[in-house]
Amino acid sequence: MTVLNSVHHINFVVSDIDESVRAYQRILGLGPFEFEDLLERGVRTARTRLGDVWIVLVSPQDEESIVGRYLREHGEGFLLLSFGVDDLDLAMLDLSKRGAMAPDSKPRSGILGWPVADLDTEETLGARFHLTQHPGSSARP
Amino acid sequence: MTVLNSVHHINFVVSDIDESVRAYQRILGLGPFEFEDLLERGVRTARTRLGDVWIVLVSPQDEESIVGRYLREHGEGFLLLSFGVDDLDLAMLDLSKRGAMAPDSKPRSGILGWPVADLDTEETLGARFHLTQHPGSSARP
Repeated sequence: MTVLNSVHHINFVVSDIDESVRAYQRILGLGPFEFEDLLERGVRTARTRLGDVWIVLVSPQDEESIVGRYLREHGEGFLLLSFGVDDLDLAMLDLSKRGAMAPDSKPRSGILGWPVADLDTEETLGARFHLTQHPGSSARP
Repeated sequence: MTVLNSVHHINFVVSDIDESVRAYQRILGLGPFEFEDLLERGVRTARTRLGDVWIVLVSPQDEESIVGRYLREHGEGFLLLSFGVDDLDLAMLDLSKRGAMAPDSKPRSGILGWPVADLDTEETLGARFHLTQHPGSSARP
């Protein structure tokens, strides 16, 4: 039994956010996008919703931010998938028992004020995952 | 306006599918997983559903398959995101006009017999995208 209730959002790291928003609009028809800076993460974001899932483009404004280093190492593309959870504190307790995150991990504030927490799965699963508190998703049809 | 109606599934490439299924179950609590071989793609797959989205692990059985070469080049992790579309033929027409796929692209059969088509976005968007015919997703709340 998992505490994860949904795929809440998917982040793609991009180099130039204005250019990438135009490309995603032109090539996939996605949009409109809404922009938001996350100053404490050193990134600018652009989000659009598709069905129940947010597609979020993330561009580092600081080359030495976590995302800036990720872009330098991996290039543009998938950054992370964030799972929706009903209760972030309970989910963090469960996932730290599973070894998916350090027991002293702290939640932080994402775009739109979403309470989020980073998992520590890159070495074990090869991919970055993340939690977003989003109650009630599991009750959807 | 986009012909894309949802995030239908997300594929992660893995090296050893049995080991990865156990890791995703243990670390994230996901599952149960159902296995399926796609012989013409040279891969073994394991899928589980989370809310409205399928999480699919894909392991190459043939090192020279497309997925085998991708794994060798990129390592384990995100492979592609597949968008749901109401009508695959109409969506392919729209997306080839947008330059997201070659005009002579042909649909193929994915797991569970899903009609799917590969987009050609890796160079332009830095990420691999894909279409799955899944009518009616856009009508969901």
